[in-house]
Amino acid sequence: MIPLVLRKALVAIALLALLAGCQATPSAELRGTGDLGVIVERATGSLAVVDTSHHRILDRVEGLGDLSHASVKFSRDARYAFVFGRDGGLSRVDLLTSEITHRVMQSGNSIGGAVSQDGSLVAVANYDPGGVKVFDSETLEEVAEIPATYRDDDGDEQRSKVVGLVDAPGNRFVYSLFEAGEIHLVDMHGDTPEVSRFSDIGEAPYDALIGPNGRYYIAGLFGEDGLALLDLWHLEEGVQRILPDYGRGEERLPVYKMPHLEGWAMAGGEAWLPAVGRHEVLVADSGGWSLSERIPVHGQPIFVMTRPDERQVWVNFAHPDNNVVQVIDTEGREIVATLSPGESVLHMEFTPKGEHAWISARDSDRVVVYDTHTLEEVARLDSESPSGIFFTHRAHRIGL
Amino acid sequence: MIPLVLRKALVAIALLALLAGCQATPSAELRGTGDLGVIVERATGSLAVVDTSHHRILDRVEGLGDLSHASVKFSRDARYAFVFGRDGGLSRVDLLTSEITHRVMQSGNSIGGAVSQDGSLVAVANYDPGGVKVFDSETLEEVAEIPATYRDDDGDEQRSKVVGLVDAPGNRFVYSLFEAGEIHLVDMHGDTPEVSRFSDIGEAPYDALIGPNGRYYIAGLFGEDGLALLDLWHLEEGVQRILPDYGRGEERLPVYKMPHLEGWAMAGGEAWLPAVGRHEVLVADSGGWSLSERIPVHGQPIFVMTRPDERQVWVNFAHPDNNVVQVIDTEGREIVATLSPGESVLHMEFTPKGEHAWISARDSDRVVVYDTHTLEEVARLDSESPSGIFFTHRAHRIGL
Repeated sequence: MIPLVLRKALVAIALLALLAGCQATPSAELRGTGDLGVIVERATGSLAVVDTSHHRILDRVEGLGDLSHASVKFSRDARYAFVFGRDGGLSRVDLLTSEITHRVMQSGNSIGGAVSQDGSLVAVANYDPGGVKVFDSETLEEVAEIPATYRDDDGDEQRSKVVGLVDAPGNRFVYSLFEAGEIHLVDMHGDTPEVSRFSDIGEAPYDALIGPNGRYYIAGLFGEDGLALLDLWHLEEGVQRILPDYGRGEERLPVYKMPHLEGWAMAGGEAWLPAVGRHEVLVADSGGWSLSERIPVHGQPIFVMTRPDERQVWVNFAHPDNNVVQVIDTEGREIVATLSPGESVLHMEFTPKGEHAWISARDSDRVVVYDTHTLEEVARLDSESPSGIFFTHRAHRIGL
Repeated sequence: MIPLVLRKALVAIALLALLAGCQATPSAELRGTGDLGVIVERATGSLAVVDTSHHRILDRVEGLGDLSHASVKFSRDARYAFVFGRDGGLSRVDLLTSEITHRVMQSGNSIGGAVSQDGSLVAVANYDPGGVKVFDSETLEEVAEIPATYRDDDGDEQRSKVVGLVDAPGNRFVYSLFEAGEIHLVDMHGDTPEVSRFSDIGEAPYDALIGPNGRYYIAGLFGEDGLALLDLWHLEEGVQRILPDYGRGEERLPVYKMPHLEGWAMAGGEAWLPAVGRHEVLVADSGGWSLSERIPVHGQPIFVMTRPDERQVWVNFAHPDNNVVQVIDTEGREIVATLSPGESVLHMEFTPKGEHAWISARDSDRVVVYDTHTLEEVARLDSESPSGIFFTHRAHRIGL
């Protein structure tokens, strides 16, 4: 029989040992990270960490600053989320422990970023001061700053806002300069960044995308119609103009929100893209980049995204038509469903093999998960003003 | 001062508490699984678990039986590897703990398998008895057995070897029956399997592939020339014959090893495929499936694989030319490098974004990692008769 005082000691020591023994592995579940993802909760500056196998929210990470229009990329091992906040904050979030491992205020105002092909670098596109900063993806130590400089009409050097930053094969990054009307290519393969500049690409590039194989970089123009295309296999050809009619046209239609280019769908050798200002989804031959069809839709499209098997394209819309999502059959070229996930649909994300689509309805404070086969609702998750939804398989795709 | 006997007790209890406290998380490192992979070591019946970020072997898993011609698929969360052994053994390996969590001898002789679109099912293709077995991916409990039956010329019911089993959108599996000359499609979306049969597809299908979007299933024929194609978007059209000249031709060239179809490369709307028996890589228009070019290569090609950015195609060869790998520029249509990783090159795997290629040289007992940009060797890993190399990003791709 052990006296009470010693029994207390035993318990205390047991507890200490327990804590000590577990210190090596944080109080997090040992699990795969291939079915994880995050939902950006803009109002609360938080991320919801989600499990796409059981469509549930696992945890929340707070203290990420201003997440309006925030975007997320993932580390090469699919463990960490890099969160690019509008306030210039770059945060590295551990999806397993729900901790912010690193956070730097790296500019006054930023708009997204990218992870290098080899996973070692994170680049951020900055508005203020205009340029790109490159960080070590494990420590967030700055490894390069590349000011987005150009000469204005008076020949004075100015700095431009940077938009449409993407990763490209060969540890390169490509981005566009809004005021300068240029596309820059940075090669980080060597020790020091090598910048190639392409000028006079068009007026006010506002967003861009790179195709799934990393060959074509396409920038949308706010100041004029048409799109600027850079073929990374043929830099000597410079930037070409494609789809000259793409844009607001002569009438200068009221545009509630310029469409996102990142969501662009490539299906069966065709590009599916949101018309600007018009209630249409456009289909273009991705070989010759000529417009092949206009499909009437519910409103001004914002994101046009392909289901991974390319048989469907899902579309959301700008205000005031932003309470529905339409599903288009890519072969029949017809709308096969109009879904109502809630108020103010901001973003959509497909599971890697496409069995489910997750849709954020900001003003309904929820994310709705659909079975893309039956088009029926599978789950409904509570989330405070959710916007972007990003799953970890993006870590393995060029440009995502 | 606590008496010795009690001090011993304290230590004992402390240790117990320590173990108890850590039971929830095995003695494994908390880490992401997006940069993990496995190397099949056929001679020792083991798997080497690898880290592609630091190109190193993390651990070894043994006791997996006969791994000659073994293949591997991954769970939806990229934590578990499903190993399909030649001896009919199906094993589920935890890449984080290097433990075999489940293992069943599910047939006498099997040849690969697939994981369903939603990740809930694992299907295995069996030679003996000929058919497909479907298992719960978390428990490896059998959920369905589908005998591959057909009627021979005398009208008697026979069972056929099953080859070329792949997953397809809509929780379906597609596979071919060697003796029967049929393609079967199994729909697992509902409660019970629904089998659709396609007969007279050609003599002795020996392997097959499904394209990256899961639309076209293509089976190679051992008994005659040409390939059998099933368009999953148009099952009513049945199986069509494509590339009629694909095969050994009239002369019946000596074929040391029939090429693998899984390695098939799709680049820029074209399919790059290994010629049968000839020292050629063939290029076909993946729209009309007509042969557009023959590229002379070092030997009889086995695997023809595209670098993820589609700018290069890497090719290995059958005995006796199996000590080199050739790299073809897909635009210039020319061989840009001939690499010598070692003796008996069996398989190649690209990292998800394509910066590295891992190559197994069985008879040199090593895996060599190349920088696909500089084509220089990055690392050399000791591995006993390595064959297949598989990385976890396959978990997120249709048909891989």
